[in-house]
Amino acid sequence: MKMPGRVFLVGAGPGDPDLLTVKAVRLISGADVVVFDRLVSQEVLALAGRRANLIPVGKEPRRHPVPQERINSILIAQARAGRNTVRLKGGDPFIFGRGSEEAVALREAGIPCEIVPGITAAQGCAASIGVPLTHRGLATGVRYITGHCRQDQPLEFDWAGLADRNTTLVVYMGAANIAEIAGRLIEEGRSATTPVLAVNNGTTLRERRLVCDLEDVAAATARANFDGPVLFIIGEVVSLYPSRDICPVVREAIALHKAEKEVAAHV
Amino acid sequence: MKMPGRVFLVGAGPGDPDLLTVKAVRLISGADVVVFDRLVSQEVLALAGRRANLIPVGKEPRRHPVPQERINSILIAQARAGRNTVRLKGGDPFIFGRGSEEAVALREAGIPCEIVPGITAAQGCAASIGVPLTHRGLATGVRYITGHCRQDQPLEFDWAGLADRNTTLVVYMGAANIAEIAGRLIEEGRSATTPVLAVNNGTTLRERRLVCDLEDVAAATARANFDGPVLFIIGEVVSLYPSRDICPVVREAIALHKAEKEVAAHV
Repeated sequence: MKMPGRVFLVGAGPGDPDLLTVKAVRLISGADVVVFDRLVSQEVLALAGRRANLIPVGKEPRRHPVPQERINSILIAQARAGRNTVRLKGGDPFIFGRGSEEAVALREAGIPCEIVPGITAAQGCAASIGVPLTHRGLATGVRYITGHCRQDQPLEFDWAGLADRNTTLVVYMGAANIAEIAGRLIEEGRSATTPVLAVNNGTTLRERRLVCDLEDVAAATARANFDGPVLFIIGEVVSLYPSRDICPVVREAIALHKAEKEVAAHV
Repeated sequence: MKMPGRVFLVGAGPGDPDLLTVKAVRLISGADVVVFDRLVSQEVLALAGRRANLIPVGKEPRRHPVPQERINSILIAQARAGRNTVRLKGGDPFIFGRGSEEAVALREAGIPCEIVPGITAAQGCAASIGVPLTHRGLATGVRYITGHCRQDQPLEFDWAGLADRNTTLVVYMGAANIAEIAGRLIEEGRSATTPVLAVNNGTTLRERRLVCDLEDVAAATARANFDGPVLFIIGEVVSLYPSRDICPVVREAIALHKAEKEVAAHV
């Protein structure tokens, strides 16, 4: 029997390949097999060696082409065949994304497994745009949640805790449920004028962003017609946004939305 | 007048130089000046070019050798002298660490400034140790706070929100105040047996760790006599800790502490 290969659960970061860790680049370029998600960019995959076997296991919203159990089996089978296997996940494997389920399955199968962290979307977007996640006097901490839930399941959060005005709240994959999230936060006492930054394709050349008040975020997001996952940063830190950098398309959309709201208010 | 240099606020990650981003390595090795904190490791500083000017501005607990305003002035002066300046901060510049204060000061001075995110200690420790920050059924999200506060200031948090049992709570720089934090969390209903992982010098060769219950964390931390900042990961995700990896010294300390507790309980 062959010695099993190692499996590395590697964070691919937020999109920009320059934000991969040194370790991630080395592991990807030396891997026999790379098992990757839909959100991993072509630029990152291009780092794999020419002879590497690239196996896509991406999930799309409301479709699970490869169930989690099958992904676990692929990793175990590749390792048992003696291949060094990199499992590439968008962002950080231990912040959402079910990396730990794979780590547990590998451990139970007796396969050596190592975790390599990655820049998570909140960090990538914050840095790219110039909005900090914490700032003295504005936010004593930061909290990450995911706005995505299994089909037909309600969102279950401690809404009162989420509404804490001294904490920056980051919502991953939040586009589908941002109306409910914003509404519940306002009900629990978070100010309707809390600034929100919405980012689509953060850190990539296709990055788009939008700044608005919490009460407007659902309408503004719908109007922006973003392509793919949207990250929301909610909190007073967004007031530090260097507004002269707003891309013109988004500035127009915001102005249009404001004008319509004023019209509506006068009807 | 010279063109001003650029300033890059760069995350140096949790300690292991392999966890720097590709972009950070390139910027450090090409910088004219590197302004760095106490927590930035020698291995990371060694990436700077031989002719680079290395300027330490580290703070130690209860000592501020270089006040924040002075750090801002140094960055502005170096940039105005036309030098490409890397400001290296432990972890991520926008998660604690006052990076945004420097970004604002630079922006006000008209100096071009770019932010490069870094792996924050929570991610580095989680990956190194095999404890995820989120996990289906155990934690729907994660929250970072800092346990360090200005001298003589009380800790001010929404304690009820912090006690949410579905959120992993990560406390940075928490050693001095962990007794109060644990006590308040338990008062607010977080179980006294919630598992806690304490990590010292995470991701480096000097990494030390300890796993215990929330009610024991202050005593166990005091006994462990950690050297430097301690990161606490509090929540059910810690139950996924691969316990066979506990380093023997720490296992002994835990056993000793348990034995003493049992003795105390029988007195």
